[in-house]
Amino acid sequence: MKVLITIEYNGKYFSGWQRQKKGVGVQEVLEDALSSLLKENITLTASGRTDAGVHAICQYAHFSINSNFNLERLPYAVNTYLPEGVRVLSASVVDESFNARLSAHKKTYLYKIYTRKILSPLREGFYANVPYELNYEQMLKAAKLFLGKHNFKGFCSEGSSVKSFEREIYSFEIEKNQDEYYFKITGNGFLYNMVRRIVAAVVEVGKGKLSLKDITLALKDYNVKHITKNMPPCGLYLLNVEY
Amino acid sequence: MKVLITIEYNGKYFSGWQRQKKGVGVQEVLEDALSSLLKENITLTASGRTDAGVHAICQYAHFSINSNFNLERLPYAVNTYLPEGVRVLSASVVDESFNARLSAHKKTYLYKIYTRKILSPLREGFYANVPYELNYEQMLKAAKLFLGKHNFKGFCSEGSSVKSFEREIYSFEIEKNQDEYYFKITGNGFLYNMVRRIVAAVVEVGKGKLSLKDITLALKDYNVKHITKNMPPCGLYLLNVEY
Repeated sequence: MKVLITIEYNGKYFSGWQRQKKGVGVQEVLEDALSSLLKENITLTASGRTDAGVHAICQYAHFSINSNFNLERLPYAVNTYLPEGVRVLSASVVDESFNARLSAHKKTYLYKIYTRKILSPLREGFYANVPYELNYEQMLKAAKLFLGKHNFKGFCSEGSSVKSFEREIYSFEIEKNQDEYYFKITGNGFLYNMVRRIVAAVVEVGKGKLSLKDITLALKDYNVKHITKNMPPCGLYLLNVEY
Repeated sequence: MKVLITIEYNGKYFSGWQRQKKGVGVQEVLEDALSSLLKENITLTASGRTDAGVHAICQYAHFSINSNFNLERLPYAVNTYLPEGVRVLSASVVDESFNARLSAHKKTYLYKIYTRKILSPLREGFYANVPYELNYEQMLKAAKLFLGKHNFKGFCSEGSSVKSFEREIYSFEIEKNQDEYYFKITGNGFLYNMVRRIVAAVVEVGKGKLSLKDITLALKDYNVKHITKNMPPCGLYLLNVEY
């Protein structure tokens, strides 16, 4: 039986999604907990990796089991095996052809910043601090430039072992609430560091340090390479995946 | 010169506002930081204490100094002396007759809960979890019963060394947002654990475990003592004080 689970985690407790030599990955603690509970060796395939420090409001992963288990009970049962910072929210049967990574056709990320000049102890680890006055109207215009299909090689970090850098952005909203901005971006997929680099570029437009033309150019010709800023991981949340 | 400062802190880092023998109080780290910066022995008087684990979005405290200091620069300067979890937001001169505790005439607290059955790693330490379906309409009705002047002896914990248990509640709003409820209560003052006990009583009404009549009775006759529940400190925020 193939099972799909949804997972919430606080990125500060983990060295990212993936099992690794240094530090603890979310995948590792989940596989260990599921293996203990189900008394089988469980291997998880997630919708995609998240970096160290990045949060997930809703990550998706699938695994196969030989035995049967009451899937309604599974989240409660497996959560008793999990350390602080991660919880399984739901579990359901999926078709044998389903793959949490390959079947994903839309992903949505959320990025949170606040612009106060003094660091906020209550928002630490959950927001990035950008201590600048930002031009909201210009940022909204910048966000629109990303919509549609583009070669995003200029907006990702080295280390993406992908065949194509073309991705499609379906929506990119920026909500303002007092000194906070929430960036919500939906696309068919994202390259390594792509969300954080896109948000960084939009923020630079908000500061007046990049122009709309700079963004347009970087989207047309990735060799321009003037989009160099990145945002810290703590402001980033995997919000949802659509299948 | 008498100085009023505003302070934000994350309650999880401290054993409450007050200087104490066990653990570290917010008052202590602030007094130490201000004393180091200003090279004088600084004693702070806050608008009131907050318990261990309780947050402050905006706490107020005053102190006196003999020397002069650029108050616009003070927050930035003192923050470099402060540990994680607390920041001074602003500083201004106040009249010699001003007292952060005695001059306070309105205080507003915020209490946050979420009702999901599975614990939320991203809300841990910032919300209380109440894994029940709550009747919002009944809770709104319950909240209204607290408005006005009442003897709140039935809604505070032992340890209040006060002359009078009468307090006035000016407003009490409950906002619902998906599985979250925000309780916002403003009064002329609050007894020991009073906000948390009021919220607990309203939540019991939401669960159907207390009736509106139970609340009315407890507000009329504090000897009834059937309001025994308390809420955890992590959901509570001192939101503002008015002078």
